[in-house]
Amino acid sequence: MSSGDYQCLVSRLKRVHYLGTAVGLLGWDEQVNLPPDSADLRAEQLALLAELQHEAAVDPQIGALLKNLVPVNADQAVVVREAQRDYDRVTKVPASFVAEKARHSSAAYHAWVASKEKSDFAAFAPFLQKHLDIALQEASLLGWGDRPYDYAIDKHDPGVTSEKLTALFGELQAGLVPLVRAIADSPVRAPIGVFRGFPIEAQRRFLREVTEKLGFNYRRGRIDVSLHPFCEGAGADIRMTTRFDPDNPLDSLFSSIHETGHGLYEQGLPLKAQGTPLGQNAGMGVHESQSRLWENQVARSHSFWAFFEPRFRGIFPQQLGHVSSDEFYLAVNEVAPTLIRVDSDEVHYNLHILLRFEIERRLFSGELAVKDLPAAWNVLSQDLLGLTPDCDRMGVLQDVHWASGSFGYFPSYCLGNMIAAQLWFTVGQVFPDLETDFAKGDFARLLGWLRTQIHEQGRRYQALELVRQVTGEELTPKYLLRYLQSRYGPLYLK
Amino acid sequence: MSSGDYQCLVSRLKRVHYLGTAVGLLGWDEQVNLPPDSADLRAEQLALLAELQHEAAVDPQIGALLKNLVPVNADQAVVVREAQRDYDRVTKVPASFVAEKARHSSAAYHAWVASKEKSDFAAFAPFLQKHLDIALQEASLLGWGDRPYDYAIDKHDPGVTSEKLTALFGELQAGLVPLVRAIADSPVRAPIGVFRGFPIEAQRRFLREVTEKLGFNYRRGRIDVSLHPFCEGAGADIRMTTRFDPDNPLDSLFSSIHETGHGLYEQGLPLKAQGTPLGQNAGMGVHESQSRLWENQVARSHSFWAFFEPRFRGIFPQQLGHVSSDEFYLAVNEVAPTLIRVDSDEVHYNLHILLRFEIERRLFSGELAVKDLPAAWNVLSQDLLGLTPDCDRMGVLQDVHWASGSFGYFPSYCLGNMIAAQLWFTVGQVFPDLETDFAKGDFARLLGWLRTQIHEQGRRYQALELVRQVTGEELTPKYLLRYLQSRYGPLYLK
Repeated sequence: MSSGDYQCLVSRLKRVHYLGTAVGLLGWDEQVNLPPDSADLRAEQLALLAELQHEAAVDPQIGALLKNLVPVNADQAVVVREAQRDYDRVTKVPASFVAEKARHSSAAYHAWVASKEKSDFAAFAPFLQKHLDIALQEASLLGWGDRPYDYAIDKHDPGVTSEKLTALFGELQAGLVPLVRAIADSPVRAPIGVFRGFPIEAQRRFLREVTEKLGFNYRRGRIDVSLHPFCEGAGADIRMTTRFDPDNPLDSLFSSIHETGHGLYEQGLPLKAQGTPLGQNAGMGVHESQSRLWENQVARSHSFWAFFEPRFRGIFPQQLGHVSSDEFYLAVNEVAPTLIRVDSDEVHYNLHILLRFEIERRLFSGELAVKDLPAAWNVLSQDLLGLTPDCDRMGVLQDVHWASGSFGYFPSYCLGNMIAAQLWFTVGQVFPDLETDFAKGDFARLLGWLRTQIHEQGRRYQALELVRQVTGEELTPKYLLRYLQSRYGPLYLK
Repeated sequence: MSSGDYQCLVSRLKRVHYLGTAVGLLGWDEQVNLPPDSADLRAEQLALLAELQHEAAVDPQIGALLKNLVPVNADQAVVVREAQRDYDRVTKVPASFVAEKARHSSAAYHAWVASKEKSDFAAFAPFLQKHLDIALQEASLLGWGDRPYDYAIDKHDPGVTSEKLTALFGELQAGLVPLVRAIADSPVRAPIGVFRGFPIEAQRRFLREVTEKLGFNYRRGRIDVSLHPFCEGAGADIRMTTRFDPDNPLDSLFSSIHETGHGLYEQGLPLKAQGTPLGQNAGMGVHESQSRLWENQVARSHSFWAFFEPRFRGIFPQQLGHVSSDEFYLAVNEVAPTLIRVDSDEVHYNLHILLRFEIERRLFSGELAVKDLPAAWNVLSQDLLGLTPDCDRMGVLQDVHWASGSFGYFPSYCLGNMIAAQLWFTVGQVFPDLETDFAKGDFARLLGWLRTQIHEQGRRYQALELVRQVTGEELTPKYLLRYLQSRYGPLYLK
């Protein structure tokens, strides 16, 4: 093996990466800019680029190079290990299977939209069944036939298994349910309807100030408006989106801070390793830990608002004139159960995920048939959230994930919450006075720590190993429980 | 040959097309959205997509299919003829030549920017010389070694030759110079500095109303802001750009109407033939005829402003309060010589092109050496425009075209003006009362006529044949001269 071979591998991996970023940019443009009747053209462009990206990824030269390469240092070892993993994944699945899955995803998505509108799960059930069959077949093709749900999880969070999640989530549930019940019994209620008439242009200015202070680099990214907020891009060009509602400025603000967390992670990946696994993120759980840490641990804190509340009031003096500081802080930290995951506060959010994990686990094990999904959902919803949806639209049909065949994705959200809390505890040990920075509008120490500990590692470690390396401990839900208790106890359980 | 072969050809042509539109979209995004430090990534993405597009275009299967295909109808004959033309162009040039040309274009562009800043032609001369050498070599590779300038012209306007242009431009110059001299001697002057403080948001609203009335379909296109206005896209997704200056609302308006003309043409190409030559434009001259017709013949007319002036005044009552209708119309039709082509009025504009055509003609024939270009430019500038630049920045270095190796492109602008005027005359014969529509804000009859006569033809006819078909006459400058006389005579030569 020569260093020329390694460079050759890298340049082939970069082709796959650049095509992926082109696909990503066209996808971003589709959500942000695309004229309404140009969707067919965009579909053609995306299908062709996806085909070319697939061709680049299964390039037999990559396989041949990987077979002969002997890494000469630790970085090369990571690149070869992860490139092999990617190559196996993409080559073990025949192109015809990929095409069939893509076709079905499109059909299932449209069926889901129609079923959700009519709140008619039965109409969607055959599409979900086929998605499940495809997922089982894919696991089998990849050599995970005996553990198909582990495969689904591993796709998003390498190294994480259903067994580990069962243990982690069980412990989390045991601690979380009493906290939720106690808050439900509390007489304290966040004020309702106090935010009215926040002009969008002014919201935009405040948002820009906040995200810049957090450290988002607008020389390598931007924020625009789309129907659903998201963050797209890798390293050198990060496109975040948000949405504005004059009567709900906190929705835009917090979803933007969430996306900023994703964006900071991507901007912190080593640019010199761009296009190789060392320049890529370590999976969905770690990604979500970054968005959640900034959204929750940072931006719901007293210290954050010690700096930003006066600024927020300076921009919206009239709108906030009748809201006291205590009311404002309570509104920022409102806890109330809801049937809809994406509207959930950070305490209940985890219960929404436990529900979905349990459903997916049973589906993949064969304990639960697709047709029985609504009934199982409703029972779990009552158990965990204390609420039963009165229609499937508010229950089992609410999320897009299953409609697009994404199984094993939901756990990442809760993994992310646990990782965020554990990182938060660790950084608090390293810098006990960290929050005094926040009160001065300074987030550089936190970001610097995340940069070296998490961002700059790329895919060097899998999620659980990364947590172990950085926090000196196995992943545990106890820090999440401790954090939630410390955040919401003083507010609701006085 | 089977109909399967034809479909196979079409599907391969579409791959080239869709890759081209993806390149176009990324290029548009670069001008409109790209964060400042993301340019390196965009360059990588574009280089890779251009390489893949080239690969798709030289696909030997296209050559094999073309060799055996016998068209079964007129449409197929057009597709086969034009696809063969494209295939020859792209396959007769080795990939190494294409790469060298791209590298040199990039270097020459940066050299031009620096030379222009210092007004130092000598520093740019070697780059221009190499561009010229490359152009001569390319003509030779394509089999046009004895007529290299004709090749450069033919690239932009198939079927047009230097000899034809010499005749057309000579006749145009003979008629134009006396008109320009007469206007120069006129005591009438457009009012200066009367437009001040037009808020951008209001300009944007007016612009939207105008472009929608003209017929631009915002369900298949949009308008954004960039440094230099342009129009990108094909058929199903047209991206126009403009720029706003509170003290120069007419600049934004007229450049946007110009881009709207380009956009209307692209939107009018037959969508069902998308990706084949029947769904593509007939060259730069025809394209420019569409932008000029809407910008000049339509939007500088009394009838256009009969409808829009009250609306414009309604949006800007204060700003226009002190400007009379006559002054306003004169400002819209200001004629004054300038050294800078892009700032020129439509009368002088053609003289700027004649100058550049003459320079290019002499360069390619060897009559003129690159080093002598500034001197030749200045003499021609004095002859044609009555002005001599006092530095090369205001003269020979002003345009980006030669910096990017685009020779034979300038004539298209003047061709476009002649075609526009000839079409304008013809449509006026067909609908003598056409302008009464405009005064009612109705442009549908004109657009409908252009749609059937020009847009829907795609690349069925080359420019000169298209003019013959539509107007029943060879292309002649007499309609342009007649139009200019009729527009500016009454204003300046009363």
